Amino acid sequence: MNFLDVDDLTTGELAAVLDRAAAIKTDYREDGATDLLDGQTLGMIFEKPSTRTRVSFETGMTQLGGHAVFLGPDDIGLHGREPVKDIARALGRYVDFVMARVYDHADVVELGEYAEVPVINALTDDAHPCQTLADLLTIREHFDDPTVAWVGDGNNVCQSFVLGAAMSGLDLTVATPEGYGVDEGVLERAEGLGTAPATTTDPEAAIADADVVYTDVWVSMGQEDERAEKLAAFEGFQITPELLGDRALMHCLPAHRGEEVTDAVIESDNAIVWDQAENRLHAQKGLLAWLAEQE
Amino acid sequence: MNFLDVDDLTTGELAAVLDRAAAIKTDYREDGATDLLDGQTLGMIFEKPSTRTRVSFETGMTQLGGHAVFLGPDDIGLHGREPVKDIARALGRYVDFVMARVYDHADVVELGEYAEVPVINALTDDAHPCQTLADLLTIREHFDDPTVAWVGDGNNVCQSFVLGAAMSGLDLTVATPEGYGVDEGVLERAEGLGTAPATTTDPEAAIADADVVYTDVWVSMGQEDERAEKLAAFEGFQITPELLGDRALMHCLPAHRGEEVTDAVIESDNAIVWDQAENRLHAQKGLLAWLAEQE
Amino acid sequence: MNFLDVDDLTTGELAAVLDRAAAIKTDYREDGATDLLDGQTLGMIFEKPSTRTRVSFETGMTQLGGHAVFLGPDDIGLHGREPVKDIARALGRYVDFVMARVYDHADVVELGEYAEVPVINALTDDAHPCQTLADLLTIREHFDDPTVAWVGDGNNVCQSFVLGAAMSGLDLTVATPEGYGVDEGVLERAEGLGTAPATTTDPEAAIADADVVYTDVWVSMGQEDERAEKLAAFEGFQITPELLGDRALMHCLPAHRGEEVTDAVIESDNAIVWDQAENRLHAQKGLLAWLAEQE
Repeated sequence: MNFLDVDDLTTGELAAVLDRAAAIKTDYREDGATDLLDGQTLGMIFEKPSTRTRVSFETGMTQLGGHAVFLGPDDIGLHGREPVKDIARALGRYVDFVMARVYDHADVVELGEYAEVPVINALTDDAHPCQTLADLLTIREHFDDPTVAWVGDGNNVCQSFVLGAAMSGLDLTVATPEGYGVDEGVLERAEGLGTAPATTTDPEAAIADADVVYTDVWVSMGQEDERAEKLAAFEGFQITPELLGDRALMHCLPAHRGEEVTDAVIESDNAIVWDQAENRLHAQKGLLAWLAEQE
Repeated sequence: MNFLDVDDLTTGELAAVLDRAAAIKTDYREDGATDLLDGQTLGMIFEKPSTRTRVSFETGMTQLGGHAVFLGPDDIGLHGREPVKDIARALGRYVDFVMARVYDHADVVELGEYAEVPVINALTDDAHPCQTLADLLTIREHFDDPTVAWVGDGNNVCQSFVLGAAMSGLDLTVATPEGYGVDEGVLERAEGLGTAPATTTDPEAAIADADVVYTDVWVSMGQEDERAEKLAAFEGFQITPELLGDRALMHCLPAHRGEEVTDAVIESDNAIVWDQAENRLHAQKGLLAWLAEQE
Repeated sequence: MNFLDVDDLTTGELAAVLDRAAAIKTDYREDGATDLLDGQTLGMIFEKPSTRTRVSFETGMTQLGGHAVFLGPDDIGLHGREPVKDIARALGRYVDFVMARVYDHADVVELGEYAEVPVINALTDDAHPCQTLADLLTIREHFDDPTVAWVGDGNNVCQSFVLGAAMSGLDLTVATPEGYGVDEGVLERAEGLGTAPATTTDPEAAIADADVVYTDVWVSMGQEDERAEKLAAFEGFQITPELLGDRALMHCLPAHRGEEVTDAVIESDNAIVWDQAENRLHAQKGLLAWLAEQE
């Protein structure tokens, strides 16, 4: 079984993974590391670097009694020496799980088709379902049935969150500039899973009734040439202390102060972004433990 | 004791390592990881990247209860800041084994001379003895005393296989284009160890009585400037479905479809290349376990 | 508690860390790995590569039952995507210790301020306290209250050693060329901690009464453009067999033969440099174990 986007799970399975993550978090704090995945290996393919993804997965495997092999862009070329399917078949003979952070979503699909071990999407241009697991865990910990506003780019982080929100019955409004909205296909999938979010191009309207405001960078790694155009398009979408008020702030980090958030906002007590970052660790441990039991 | 080429072992020791590998493979499938090398570390020096070598050694150490430190070209320079002998002496004070994938065979010899812990050759321009261990294990699993044809370049993979075949009493014929044959010194070593292989420049003749056909890339990493010349020299050596017939296909991967093999051949059920790739893991675990007992 | 320079410890704490290191070294040789840091993770930030630092910390964590995550310059940018304080806060949510080898000492100070887990300085432009721990452990093992001469550059290695020597009551003379002496502030800190070393620009005078001579490279990584100037300034400071006599030689490696040492000297039995290198492992294990108990 693969985890390429949130809706690879049923609603019940998503709840089970989150329950597992919460239990593993509590257990670790009380009893330390386990040997749940003793001697098991996670192969990690990174086409682009990521501190949080790398460290949370590698630390998570250690805490579960296993090990993670880091394969960076210099170690493995998904479109270099051999086809993706050959990489998948070879890796799948050595490791117990594969994690991939790649550009093209089709690559994780192909890895998943050929690896014969669970493949986990740790970020593609289309989806970031591990972030969504951490987000939903964080929301569960901080709120009881909150109203959430996404304010910013309708990007991969947003798209997986939209699906997770639909599956979790979260009341979500997505505010993006014209032309930067969530993909229509994702909205349809959300509709089929529960409820598509309300959408708007007015950040203030989206935030009005919200308990939590979630934003993300406007300009991702590798998109620096679009910076000027994007900064113009996102005028008015910056989360300032005035716009945020006493609501909680979520952000999947890294934060670009002066762009999508001000320094004051990210440094304020309203920001639950470090809890959210930490929950990547616990959510992914829950996912790995759960996947290990599905085989 | 070092493992710089297959004939660093006696015939009896080679058989013992393969027996150990087979037993470790069975035990792992039945009982999972062991603590045979609990807390021990393998230092891995890579002058060039290799997915299979990297992941099989690192996963193998994890399954044996130890750890592998990956030192890539950016982490360690064999001919940069300090002489090879100083690297060997320092590394040997920290780790329990050293594995090196380098260009110049003289470098693994020097590492072995100074490290004071076992040094394992994981590929040089001259030899690839860990691949040979996996090959012999794969052949043992699939055949009882088969006839084998190597068709292609008389390269490092071929040369170590020639030695391993001689030590194992395998009936081997090596077909290479004129000028791409196995080094004379290697043939003499094979003769001294048992039997030198028959050699020919006619792939069809080599294959005629074979149960297994073994090939490898014609153009290795770093030799891309020789591609045109090599493709011309190796005309007629491509393993096609017609040439292969119902024989088994071995290949140490990565495969270059359209060069030494066709896509149809590598995707066919005749290809035992994924079993062969997996056996890198088990063979190397057998080697590590065996070496640990020699000290 | 952080370890950013030797004098972050009290004199008593420094002795305790060295005692712990010595005990851990003995225990490891007798009983092998422990589970003292079972399932714990050390995050390692490297702005520049280092074989000894990398392998000694990573192997040390393995021998203590934990794991080290290597983050090289391609994996993490201290001055790239996000501010140091954000990296510190995120890392500190995942790992149990942070180790950093960076250029600017202010960066380890900022990491230490925000990480909420112990931060260890594994080399900055100003200090190298982990090397000093290994040096003091080596001196303890080889001598009883020796007289020590540092001959060479008054660099980061020298500066931390000056502090450690003052705290340990070592009789130290530092000989550097004019203009390459130890920072005045460091001499004042040494004075406050015990005794500032004698200083001179005459290597022969410094060595006259010494039992041990300690030197280091004149030209560090990244300073190659200063080579010609430095070689001129350090004329007469090369440790030759004649200058060394029957004294012991220490060097934190890598050694540049023909610059600060001759080949004959570093290859002689007077060189205790490999013991010193090995002691990085044991000293750092002692430090990690001790730090884990301070929280």
